[in-house]
Amino acid sequence: MTQNRAIVLLSGGLDSSTVIAEAAREGRICHALSFRYGQRHEFELEAARSIAARFGAVEHKILDIDLRAFGASALTDDIEVPKDSLDESGSIPVTYVPARNTIFLSFALAHAEVSGAREIWMGVNAIDYSGYPDCRPEYIAAFEAMAGLATKDGVEGRGVSIRTPLLEMDKGAIVRRALELGVPLESTHSCYDPSADGTPCRRCDACILRARGFAAAGVPDPVLVDA
Amino acid sequence: MTQNRAIVLLSGGLDSSTVIAEAAREGRICHALSFRYGQRHEFELEAARSIAARFGAVEHKILDIDLRAFGASALTDDIEVPKDSLDESGSIPVTYVPARNTIFLSFALAHAEVSGAREIWMGVNAIDYSGYPDCRPEYIAAFEAMAGLATKDGVEGRGVSIRTPLLEMDKGAIVRRALELGVPLESTHSCYDPSADGTPCRRCDACILRARGFAAAGVPDPVLVDA
Repeated sequence: MTQNRAIVLLSGGLDSSTVIAEAAREGRICHALSFRYGQRHEFELEAARSIAARFGAVEHKILDIDLRAFGASALTDDIEVPKDSLDESGSIPVTYVPARNTIFLSFALAHAEVSGAREIWMGVNAIDYSGYPDCRPEYIAAFEAMAGLATKDGVEGRGVSIRTPLLEMDKGAIVRRALELGVPLESTHSCYDPSADGTPCRRCDACILRARGFAAAGVPDPVLVDA
Repeated sequence: MTQNRAIVLLSGGLDSSTVIAEAAREGRICHALSFRYGQRHEFELEAARSIAARFGAVEHKILDIDLRAFGASALTDDIEVPKDSLDESGSIPVTYVPARNTIFLSFALAHAEVSGAREIWMGVNAIDYSGYPDCRPEYIAAFEAMAGLATKDGVEGRGVSIRTPLLEMDKGAIVRRALELGVPLESTHSCYDPSADGTPCRRCDACILRARGFAAAGVPDPVLVDA
């Protein structure tokens, strides 16, 4: 089978680490893709390197793209990361980075065409998420439709599938699936605003959602056990 | 009217220079956006700076994105730019850069959301083009549909329009329109593979299509007059 190459968007967090484990389990030859996009810290890229190696990625590209050129997000600008304030009203938080998933998927699409991959795997999640518009199923479907028209592969009738195995899972289910798949959770990094040594803040939205997942799964978070 | 901001993708070539002139004529407040994406030369960025200033852009961002990380195009890799060989069979030439317009439009979408623009203007052209899949009307429509779901603006019912005034024009019509709009054609740069001083090669696809446009319009190309 020559159709089993996949691009995997890998941030090094719980979700994308579970996704590359799932892709590897399904026998995909994984090309991991990460971004240095002006985020506040590099711990997640270190986590991504470790996870890519663990799941046998044949390649791990880290692209430099400067989303700070646009600013307007607490993750890329001088806006404070909110603490102790996960908002579940459905409004969009200040950690939203404009068009980030569209930009990431566009690079993944280029990489897919060049490397002959027919799939892009991605850890988006529409249940326990932070209200980001570009994590919704209708967005993913629209990107896939566009991608099918955008490239030489598309013109020749070979579009690309966007695989989002976590889309309908809650965080507890994701933690359980990660454990089943042997994801080294101690090597993943989720916090938006860690201390200088990488210790999670435990108070940002990403920490709150992650803690909720471990609580629902009934297991301790190994990142926190020794903290 | 507060809705008249527009992002204009500006390469500094004939087409995008005509597009920013058209946007300015329609009263848009133009935010020009260019990319240093690993192309073989910087002459087009110099042209873009000059054209942005000429049409009163309130801002001109030049983003660094390294498409050489993927290679696979004569514009970004060690592949020779074809000469004297414009292929009109509809096959896709080696100067095609995988997913380039999707990547450019994705950044433009981020910029539109941050700056409050509701339009992205772009010089794609489906008639006298080089067979690129991401220059077709159905692709542009699909991107617009995706963009309407991708962002906070989209979720709140304010999508972005992709304006492509040259989509159905041939190169002769584009040259005539550029002249009507006062585009300083001597400041534009189209050649894929100029000499070290910026002189167009006259033999690559971009030069051949540009020459065809000037011939059809019945005017000399000012870039070549003194060459």
